[in-house]
Amino acid sequence: MDVSANKRRHDDAYVVGVDFGTLSARALVVRVSDGTEAGTAVSEFAHGVIDRELPADAGAGSGPTGTSGPARSSTSARSSTSARSSTSARSSRSARSSRSPRSSRSPRSSGPAGRDLPPDWALQDPGDYISALRSVVPAAIKDAGIDPGQVIGVATDFTASTCMPVLADASGTPLCQLPGLAERPHAYPKLWKHHAAQPQADRINAAAHERGEKWINRYGGKISSEWQFAKALQVLDEDPEIYQRADRWIEAADWIIWQLCGAETRNACTAGYKGIFQDGQYPSRDYLATLDPRFASFAADKLAHPISPLGGLAGRLTAAAAAVTGLPEGIAVAVGNVDAHVTVPAAGSCAPGTMVAIMGTSTCHVMNATQLAEVPGMCGVVDGGIVAGLWGYEAGQSGVGDIFAWFSRNGVPGQLADQARQRDVSLQEWLDRKAVEQPPGAHGLIALDWEGGNRSVLVDGRLSGVIVGLTLATTAPEIYRALLESTAFGTRLIIETFRDAGVPVTELVAAGGLIRSAPLMQIYADVLRRPISVIGSEQGPALGSAIHAAVAAGAYPDVPAASGAMGRLIRDVYRPNQASAAVYDELYAEYVRLHDYFGRGANQVMYRLRAIRDRALAGAPGGSL
Amino acid sequence: MDVSANKRRHDDAYVVGVDFGTLSARALVVRVSDGTEAGTAVSEFAHGVIDRELPADAGAGSGPTGTSGPARSSTSARSSTSARSSTSARSSRSARSSRSPRSSRSPRSSGPAGRDLPPDWALQDPGDYISALRSVVPAAIKDAGIDPGQVIGVATDFTASTCMPVLADASGTPLCQLPGLAERPHAYPKLWKHHAAQPQADRINAAAHERGEKWINRYGGKISSEWQFAKALQVLDEDPEIYQRADRWIEAADWIIWQLCGAETRNACTAGYKGIFQDGQYPSRDYLATLDPRFASFAADKLAHPISPLGGLAGRLTAAAAAVTGLPEGIAVAVGNVDAHVTVPAAGSCAPGTMVAIMGTSTCHVMNATQLAEVPGMCGVVDGGIVAGLWGYEAGQSGVGDIFAWFSRNGVPGQLADQARQRDVSLQEWLDRKAVEQPPGAHGLIALDWEGGNRSVLVDGRLSGVIVGLTLATTAPEIYRALLESTAFGTRLIIETFRDAGVPVTELVAAGGLIRSAPLMQIYADVLRRPISVIGSEQGPALGSAIHAAVAAGAYPDVPAASGAMGRLIRDVYRPNQASAAVYDELYAEYVRLHDYFGRGANQVMYRLRAIRDRALAGAPGGSL
Repeated sequence: MDVSANKRRHDDAYVVGVDFGTLSARALVVRVSDGTEAGTAVSEFAHGVIDRELPADAGAGSGPTGTSGPARSSTSARSSTSARSSTSARSSRSARSSRSPRSSRSPRSSGPAGRDLPPDWALQDPGDYISALRSVVPAAIKDAGIDPGQVIGVATDFTASTCMPVLADASGTPLCQLPGLAERPHAYPKLWKHHAAQPQADRINAAAHERGEKWINRYGGKISSEWQFAKALQVLDEDPEIYQRADRWIEAADWIIWQLCGAETRNACTAGYKGIFQDGQYPSRDYLATLDPRFASFAADKLAHPISPLGGLAGRLTAAAAAVTGLPEGIAVAVGNVDAHVTVPAAGSCAPGTMVAIMGTSTCHVMNATQLAEVPGMCGVVDGGIVAGLWGYEAGQSGVGDIFAWFSRNGVPGQLADQARQRDVSLQEWLDRKAVEQPPGAHGLIALDWEGGNRSVLVDGRLSGVIVGLTLATTAPEIYRALLESTAFGTRLIIETFRDAGVPVTELVAAGGLIRSAPLMQIYADVLRRPISVIGSEQGPALGSAIHAAVAAGAYPDVPAASGAMGRLIRDVYRPNQASAAVYDELYAEYVRLHDYFGRGANQVMYRLRAIRDRALAGAPGGSL
Repeated sequence: MDVSANKRRHDDAYVVGVDFGTLSARALVVRVSDGTEAGTAVSEFAHGVIDRELPADAGAGSGPTGTSGPARSSTSARSSTSARSSTSARSSRSARSSRSPRSSRSPRSSGPAGRDLPPDWALQDPGDYISALRSVVPAAIKDAGIDPGQVIGVATDFTASTCMPVLADASGTPLCQLPGLAERPHAYPKLWKHHAAQPQADRINAAAHERGEKWINRYGGKISSEWQFAKALQVLDEDPEIYQRADRWIEAADWIIWQLCGAETRNACTAGYKGIFQDGQYPSRDYLATLDPRFASFAADKLAHPISPLGGLAGRLTAAAAAVTGLPEGIAVAVGNVDAHVTVPAAGSCAPGTMVAIMGTSTCHVMNATQLAEVPGMCGVVDGGIVAGLWGYEAGQSGVGDIFAWFSRNGVPGQLADQARQRDVSLQEWLDRKAVEQPPGAHGLIALDWEGGNRSVLVDGRLSGVIVGLTLATTAPEIYRALLESTAFGTRLIIETFRDAGVPVTELVAAGGLIRSAPLMQIYADVLRRPISVIGSEQGPALGSAIHAAVAAGAYPDVPAASGAMGRLIRDVYRPNQASAAVYDELYAEYVRLHDYFGRGANQVMYRLRAIRDRALAGAPGGSL
């Protein structure tokens, strides 16, 4: 290597961030010095979400040196992110969302039989993760037009809690890749949106409150069925042999790092938010024994491992992983991370009090703070959960883009779809435009944004949506606008709840696919009465991972420093219109009144409607006979 | 005339009923002996509803011997009634419906200027009524294939309150037909749905309650802006010269009789329900003076006239009217009537305690009873208002078919419309089918049927629609079903309110265009927990008028007797399913809880949303600035 090459490497070092979403993985090549995004590539997972039956070819050995089904790969320009709802926000619906529509309509089976999966199940094939790595990293390097030798580090982020049973061997082999276990559903990774462990979550919560476990208050009083403990307990309940054979129970976020550097690590983010790791420990053996005596040693046996800080160095890229990725052997591999949380540094928003709302199918609110507080209805607060040395808070709205998409599928007359087609814009873009033709309040409507339940601050998946104020003159775009507004009101209520709990939000930053809707963003600015800054990258999670890679490689002393140099934030893109804000103040007062009436027990009509529905669908007779 | 012709006339006597709706008139030729419907014809009004500007050719002299614009006429088979929402039910939306969407969105002008009409106005051209007569009666006779000489009587029913200023000359010449007055909007008939007299109605109600006028309780505590007094007071306020020149202020229901028999009459139905005629008198001079000193003699000067019982003989067909209709001069002309009320004898339902629900765009509930009671929120109770000798009760739901039509226009995705087209059925028929694919309660929804305000029992046009229980799995047909059910719940609440006031409903009969929907009718039977009988004629109002003609002609001693022989009722077509009824009991309990919460003051969010809306549309700043 000559001197000029050395110099170029020094000045022009790059890192690679890989974002593992629900349906695809995306690699981003980023210049270390200033965060310039040089190249990207995306690849869909061959098996996507496995929620009906186990595919015939899934589960076959596919570690870094194995092979699995072909991944559909595409090299694409930076604008290639998928439309509207970002993978990031979709996959970060990790907290206690309501059970999926399909599931809540069918009595849950006690477990799968054969290759068919019961309702509520959602698995993935770990082979897909490796295939994607093999595809997207070289493609992104090629897209960037750089020499792979310029890459000094790699990092990843993942959906969470996506967790799996593995062996404690050299590469943490997933059980589903063992001979004879490919047809055992519990041997596969359970995707974040696997909702079949609700009975286990109910037991976990009941026992925690009964025993007065203090950690439960770090999670707004409720552990989600989506998280590590509920999913592991389901395995124990339904396939104890698989539970038994699992040496380790690990987040995919950490498993992928194991594949890259050849060593198990446990990152502070998933351990805290999804693994109930608080104040240096997991839930006690005594507590776990009350759930099931066989579960008493779950944390000690299958989870316990030193916790690594975010941005830390997990290890060095192995020869096998170098072969898969085409990156230089020995470069830095960062500790694993979660897509939502890693977006904070990508948005240059590590400062305490800056809340980042990752707005997609659902919205995830993440924020650093110097103080520890128990915010009602938050998803979790974790020491170093976003950035080492600060308390990381997470809250969420279970339905946001989901609600808009539901409405555009189910509530929009054909002529609006025709108009959109004629103008060659998407239906939602057309609805966005039509929705804001009238001034705020002109629709005379107020809606509650609970079509997907309420995550924060009520933490109640049994709640449902409401629209008030319909008249014979009400139009579909007006209802659509009321739904847009309802999610803004939900965000305002979360921010006010944080404030009231002593954790004020001083700045608000938006990320995720929904930031493409200027009408929606303006509504948020007006409703929240504050300017909204917007992330300057369309690849938030992958950029965030790249920032972690740079820190792990030693290019920056810590994540905030790297974030300051490499993160992208466009400040105050949307500023509140005072006249609109005044109208929204009035509408928000109505929202709060209805929120409390329907959500805090005054009228539990939503519970009863749900019970009537479930009975009706189960064919049971009405209750009054 | 030979003996055989005489005998044929005796055995095969016929009567003609003419139903004047909102957009058209329809004649029905009916055999006196058994009510057989022999022929029919319909003709649209040339000027329809005049609600934007006065047409250039309207108002020109067009009494029985005059001519006006051409009427679009069609002779048609008995099945030619227009789709879904019946003219009958649409035109009987005579009570206090909410102000129209257009109107409530624009500040009301203090009066019209030039030929342009302000929002909320709805006029008609009386020449259209005569043109329609000239068209439909001969066409129906021709369709029946009878000799006009076989017709022994004619009767009409009309929308109400449709009222107008006329001269006290031989034929009650409408002021709009006088030279120089064709361009004065207040000289025209104000159609039932003219809603621009709300300020006058407000004054009428405030003064009545202030003075403790007893008659106000016969109207559920509120006089509608649609009725005679409010509309006349608006004329006085806005065009006092027209008010001054009006010798008489008369319902179109009575004016058309004047044209037929050459003499003014006043029928008990409109006098009672629309003219505040109670216990033998109109509101007192003292009371009227408080509204405006110039209004003190309104009742005495412009209304007062002996009241004629329904089914009574108004007079004999004049030579001029015989020329117009082609009917024999001198045959019986019955006293005028209203479309909704005249449907009661058509359905063979004159018995006390039998409620007839005329279900169309809105629903009108009419019922005879032996007792006088003040039922909360009824539209009115009138001595002999439906049948002489009984108390006639009227209640209503301001939006029913209107709501279904609104939803199918605004809330149904294109693919459902496509499916309907592929199956060659109407969208609403397809929605009906899809809606009931699932068992009751399976949608998890409850709705309030107030998209058009609430007529009975809350009497509050400022209320609006609500849907509770939406999830991301909710479909358009499910929402549609919830809307169907909401109107059934509204009817149940009305029936229970009558029962609680001491006026039990012992039988329920459905009429109007919505009876064509079997799924809807079954929902009503299940929700109401009672069998539903259905009128056996598609021409309810015209058949009812024909029955009145037969009584006026002396073929029957009274309306109930004629109704028994000529009316058409199919008993117990829909019977409640007990399992469904049990589920609906639960949903109805939720309906009542939400009805009272939103409708009885606990949360006046609907008023506030309406106020915010009106301010927003008027361009006023928000209230919080």
